[in-house]
Amino acid sequence: MLSRNQENLSIIPLGGVGEIGKNMFLFQYKDEIVIVDAGLKFPDEEMLGIDIVIPDFTYLIENKDKIKGLVITHGHEDHIGGVPYLLKNLSLPIYGTKLTIGLVENKLKEHHLLETAQLNVVKSTATIQLGNYFNIELFHVNHSIPDSVGLVIQTPEGIVVHSGDFKFDQTPVDGKVTNYHKLAELGQKNVLALLVDSTNAERPGITLSERSVGLSIDEAFRSSKQRIIVATFASNVHRIQQVVESAVKFHRKITVVGRSMINVVQIAMDLGYLHVPDGVLVDIDEIDKLPADEIVILSTGSQGEPMSALSRMARGAHRKVEVLPGDTVILAATPIPGNEKLVSKTIDLLFKCGANVTYRSVSGVHVSGHGSQEELKLMMNLVKPKHVIPIHGEYRMMRELGKIAEHVGIPIENVIKMEIGDVVEFTQGTGRIAGKVPSGNVLIDGLGVGDVGNIVLRDRKLLSQDGILVVVVTLSKKDGSVLSGPDIISRGFVYVRESEKLLDEANQIVNDTLARMNADKMSDWSSVKNNIKDSLGKFLFERTRRKPMILPIIMEV
Amino acid sequence: MLSRNQENLSIIPLGGVGEIGKNMFLFQYKDEIVIVDAGLKFPDEEMLGIDIVIPDFTYLIENKDKIKGLVITHGHEDHIGGVPYLLKNLSLPIYGTKLTIGLVENKLKEHHLLETAQLNVVKSTATIQLGNYFNIELFHVNHSIPDSVGLVIQTPEGIVVHSGDFKFDQTPVDGKVTNYHKLAELGQKNVLALLVDSTNAERPGITLSERSVGLSIDEAFRSSKQRIIVATFASNVHRIQQVVESAVKFHRKITVVGRSMINVVQIAMDLGYLHVPDGVLVDIDEIDKLPADEIVILSTGSQGEPMSALSRMARGAHRKVEVLPGDTVILAATPIPGNEKLVSKTIDLLFKCGANVTYRSVSGVHVSGHGSQEELKLMMNLVKPKHVIPIHGEYRMMRELGKIAEHVGIPIENVIKMEIGDVVEFTQGTGRIAGKVPSGNVLIDGLGVGDVGNIVLRDRKLLSQDGILVVVVTLSKKDGSVLSGPDIISRGFVYVRESEKLLDEANQIVNDTLARMNADKMSDWSSVKNNIKDSLGKFLFERTRRKPMILPIIMEV
Repeated sequence: MLSRNQENLSIIPLGGVGEIGKNMFLFQYKDEIVIVDAGLKFPDEEMLGIDIVIPDFTYLIENKDKIKGLVITHGHEDHIGGVPYLLKNLSLPIYGTKLTIGLVENKLKEHHLLETAQLNVVKSTATIQLGNYFNIELFHVNHSIPDSVGLVIQTPEGIVVHSGDFKFDQTPVDGKVTNYHKLAELGQKNVLALLVDSTNAERPGITLSERSVGLSIDEAFRSSKQRIIVATFASNVHRIQQVVESAVKFHRKITVVGRSMINVVQIAMDLGYLHVPDGVLVDIDEIDKLPADEIVILSTGSQGEPMSALSRMARGAHRKVEVLPGDTVILAATPIPGNEKLVSKTIDLLFKCGANVTYRSVSGVHVSGHGSQEELKLMMNLVKPKHVIPIHGEYRMMRELGKIAEHVGIPIENVIKMEIGDVVEFTQGTGRIAGKVPSGNVLIDGLGVGDVGNIVLRDRKLLSQDGILVVVVTLSKKDGSVLSGPDIISRGFVYVRESEKLLDEANQIVNDTLARMNADKMSDWSSVKNNIKDSLGKFLFERTRRKPMILPIIMEV
Repeated sequence: MLSRNQENLSIIPLGGVGEIGKNMFLFQYKDEIVIVDAGLKFPDEEMLGIDIVIPDFTYLIENKDKIKGLVITHGHEDHIGGVPYLLKNLSLPIYGTKLTIGLVENKLKEHHLLETAQLNVVKSTATIQLGNYFNIELFHVNHSIPDSVGLVIQTPEGIVVHSGDFKFDQTPVDGKVTNYHKLAELGQKNVLALLVDSTNAERPGITLSERSVGLSIDEAFRSSKQRIIVATFASNVHRIQQVVESAVKFHRKITVVGRSMINVVQIAMDLGYLHVPDGVLVDIDEIDKLPADEIVILSTGSQGEPMSALSRMARGAHRKVEVLPGDTVILAATPIPGNEKLVSKTIDLLFKCGANVTYRSVSGVHVSGHGSQEELKLMMNLVKPKHVIPIHGEYRMMRELGKIAEHVGIPIENVIKMEIGDVVEFTQGTGRIAGKVPSGNVLIDGLGVGDVGNIVLRDRKLLSQDGILVVVVTLSKKDGSVLSGPDIISRGFVYVRESEKLLDEANQIVNDTLARMNADKMSDWSSVKNNIKDSLGKFLFERTRRKPMILPIIMEV
């Protein structure tokens, strides 16, 4: 870590810049740290076998005495998914609005961490004093999950505003618009820096209102004569509310399938964010008793996840629901980058079942939860910050946000593009990148946190490409003669029954190598192993153009 | 295979329906078969380690005496990539236009098959008589590679038209429009069936002219003050021609990087499809001597392929070219589904190098080579076929094409949606699916053709997720006592140095299992192995929530 002045305000991203996912920002002044969000990211393709990715908490663990609290902007996984892992290392108070904390609770329950957690539900207009230096005021923003907030962080060095994930929806489903007045007030207060959601910085114009999705869902309901299956993100409670309203309007009952959908619907109803008239929700076992035109099935699987309810229905592998010819399937979501092929496969299977599938973005059944270019400009024009810090975007989105900032008159030198671990220090009203803290990806595989590193991933990659050959031989301790084997066992390389000749020849190669080495009177096992690897690897590559992992094992008796 | 009437005309897809890739259609009448195209497909994500996928040729091998020839519509991989594998099984004459055969030659050279191949270059207005029953007339179509054709196949049962991959470009780069007159003539001839490219059946309107890309490239050249790097599909010779023209106009020299780009540029120049004025092409080693504003680098890698030239430049890993701040990079291509994340990563890296990257479809530097809905309607209205057979599309695109056919007045019962291996039989002017031939995916991994099946793929999948534990023990033949081991070796499971305790405990589990089994006087090795697998698997899952492959090996001495 470069030396830096602990007397100033520092902003440190542990995740959420140069990537979409695992958002986590630290604000430090002297001996006090406040954390905003603790998210997870889903693994890249090359992270084979990895379940999720979280930020590296090393800096926080090293400075645990300084931490005054964690404030969470909203309940999406990329903002709350790291909380259980953080709480395994640290004890700290957590603040968030009601739905956000409800979703955190659900998560902590699964990790058996709920009892010791210090959870604090606050209003979206609340002010939280953390330590001596941080006074944090929440303000409501529109996003694809209710109860989202941005933050006004007052520090001795000036005011920093965190936009949260936001859009300006003029007609939100719950009627609560982004708090324009608070943002306008901030414009009078010499805001030092504004951290801005860059997700849609590449999109011109404005993002459509969530309300418009309701109209499209209504339209799809109106023209359907049979069952309707709607798949969307479980956390998009407003969209689910609109499905409920369409169902009521067209006299249909709703059944909910998919674990995360069932969970979130329950939490949102319990906490008063989702309003379902009595009798509208029915058990899945009831639907066979209803006429087809009185049924709505609300499901997970809008991303084509192979184990999700929708995907299983499409494959005919769901225990309770079969997709029938004439059913309407509404995919009220767009594929997240990387999921395109899975979604596309699911759509094809649904069509093959005879369903009518509504899925394209032109059909209006999805809008983004993030503001487009004109909204980003409005945010900056309202807050009038001295510095702009693009967050929540890949590099090219953050770069585009920088250009937008320039367009509204913010000098390019006041746009600070951070990388993970960078320390941005503000001194006398000016920010600059002044250092670096330990940071990076921590991979979670099953119960293992960080125990899968580059070597394990490299091996998984090799194994996935051409499989493995295990060569075992038992040698005599006395004279190095072969007592048993060599046996060759392969997995993921060739189908053994059809490759007996190849494996026989491979066996001969190993025998020749052993004979040659014994003749050379070499009894250094590691060089025996290397010789087997080399000669067998060469032979197999010549014969198959494949490079399986070769694992020689020598037993001594 | 269902019984069917060999006296009639049959159309049999071995690939290219319900998928985009490995196009291959058979036309059979009595004892004669004509093949159209022999393509490859790139593997799906779950086909771990697989290089390419080709159609199953079983039916052709079983009927090799009937085959009269292979006609190829154009030189894209999904139409020619299977040819070498076909020629390893069969000997047959091949027909195609000059560029198409040039690209096939290049491919056969790599496979050392060129000398025995029977290649026939024909004009795009040629008529080819194959056997007694098939008279095939070619007609020119516009597509994203020059010298593309559609086919008019005259048979005793009637005329079948194969659209090829096509669009109607009113201003093609080479000035040669799709042969409207031929198509209009066909409208007078009672065409029995039209096979139609469904790729863009979901897109309303028309596809823009390739010429429009030239204007956008010009625009990008005009505003660039430093080096320009253009990445596009190597086979898009018209687009490359437009890059050449922009380079000449703005007084720049071109250097070509990337193996396939170098190959195709050479072939297209040799055959007269690409026209480059003398002195415009320069060797890559020359570019350092030129001012930055006189250089164009034409490169592969528009799909973000990790080993491609562009990707290596972006990572700073290219031997000859470094991307410098201020360079302009034009990605004149859109990501093929599945490549989105790779492309996006490459763009981010290029931006980080300080380059200006032009990549979005709105920037106009890419148009599709396939016709959109209005063009598909025009094709059907010109040809006026009795039956429409959607090809070259995933199921949902073929379904959409069927709807378009209905819109132009073709009765729904005359739209025949085939699956791979289906036999569509035409009797007395009416087509129906009448049977099935052996068909499917043949996976190619290195030199192995079809030797990787479901078991190998399943093992690769398992290995890629949680790795492998090999457990070796040497037992006495005499009394079953342990002479050496158990030794546990893991790869891709946990990082061994940090998991010694876990592996020690695993060792103990194996010892306990062996002791228990010996006490039980069981000397059936397969049950010993199963017991080790079960007890170790259970232990490891409890401790890590992972399920590595467990491979117990027992050596006897």
